[in-house]
Amino acid sequence: MDLLQGIYTRRSIRRYTEQPVEREQLIEIIKAGTWAPSGLNNQPWRFIIINEKTLHHKLAQFTKYRHIIENAAACIVVLADKDSMYDELKDHQAIGACIQNMLLTAHSFGLGAVWLGEILKNSKKIRILLDYPEQMELMAVVALGYPAEPDKLSHRKEIAEVLIKEYWG
Amino acid sequence: MDLLQGIYTRRSIRRYTEQPVEREQLIEIIKAGTWAPSGLNNQPWRFIIINEKTLHHKLAQFTKYRHIIENAAACIVVLADKDSMYDELKDHQAIGACIQNMLLTAHSFGLGAVWLGEILKNSKKIRILLDYPEQMELMAVVALGYPAEPDKLSHRKEIAEVLIKEYWG
Repeated sequence: MDLLQGIYTRRSIRRYTEQPVEREQLIEIIKAGTWAPSGLNNQPWRFIIINEKTLHHKLAQFTKYRHIIENAAACIVVLADKDSMYDELKDHQAIGACIQNMLLTAHSFGLGAVWLGEILKNSKKIRILLDYPEQMELMAVVALGYPAEPDKLSHRKEIAEVLIKEYWG
Repeated sequence: MDLLQGIYTRRSIRRYTEQPVEREQLIEIIKAGTWAPSGLNNQPWRFIIINEKTLHHKLAQFTKYRHIIENAAACIVVLADKDSMYDELKDHQAIGACIQNMLLTAHSFGLGAVWLGEILKNSKKIRILLDYPEQMELMAVVALGYPAEPDKLSHRKEIAEVLIKEYWG
């Protein structure tokens, strides 16, 4: 898939077919995520793959978007390792860059994915459910599967609304 | 450029030729940035283009990486509009996703770019220099130009170091 085409045609996909996602695909998605830049190349991101229906149902309790997680073929839980972090703002940005690589890579594989953030309100309970160390902080859950919804329109502000100044010499 | 190839071959480029960067390219880089996802599609990012040597030199004072900004053909200053924000962590992540789209797009154009974060220590002075409203918060400066350095090696942790658990059903 062409890079710019991928950026412009990626959408948040919230309904999925029954078709499973291969482990190799999930590994490649995570690997692409890790090729994001990070400050001092500190790579603060960590990951958990969930491809197990009972656990999907347990995780789904923690968000009002439970149907997405229940129906997803797989979830990738994205964590920040506080022991690797050096600056909260910059580390959070780097993890956003990492997730964007993951979403683009999933899209290039013909998968649909959505970045779930609302679930962060239950970070503490999720840490207990998934039993990861206390120095790991929940950053997002990415739900994935083959899309079961038609291409959606989306919209963005015009350039004139977001480009607030230009200085030309 | 192929999407995955772009993700894996992008590098932080810190030295540039004299060749100018066209306004159309900078606009396309910003536009691609805005196609990142954001929570509630709030699109908190704002941008300033700087393509003016005197201003590059003034901005360069505010970072120990001054030679990068001085030599860059253009800089894109990335801001967060606090009036559009809803959650600091998620908005910062979204801006990271936006910047990653920008870096990938620059790379696909044959440009080199680097995400500068250390300069944030002088956010207040930069707000005065560039005279943007107080509700705009400096997030990063992206320096750009045609690369004047050879392809660089970079490295990332192995998957086994970052994938801390897997649950399969």
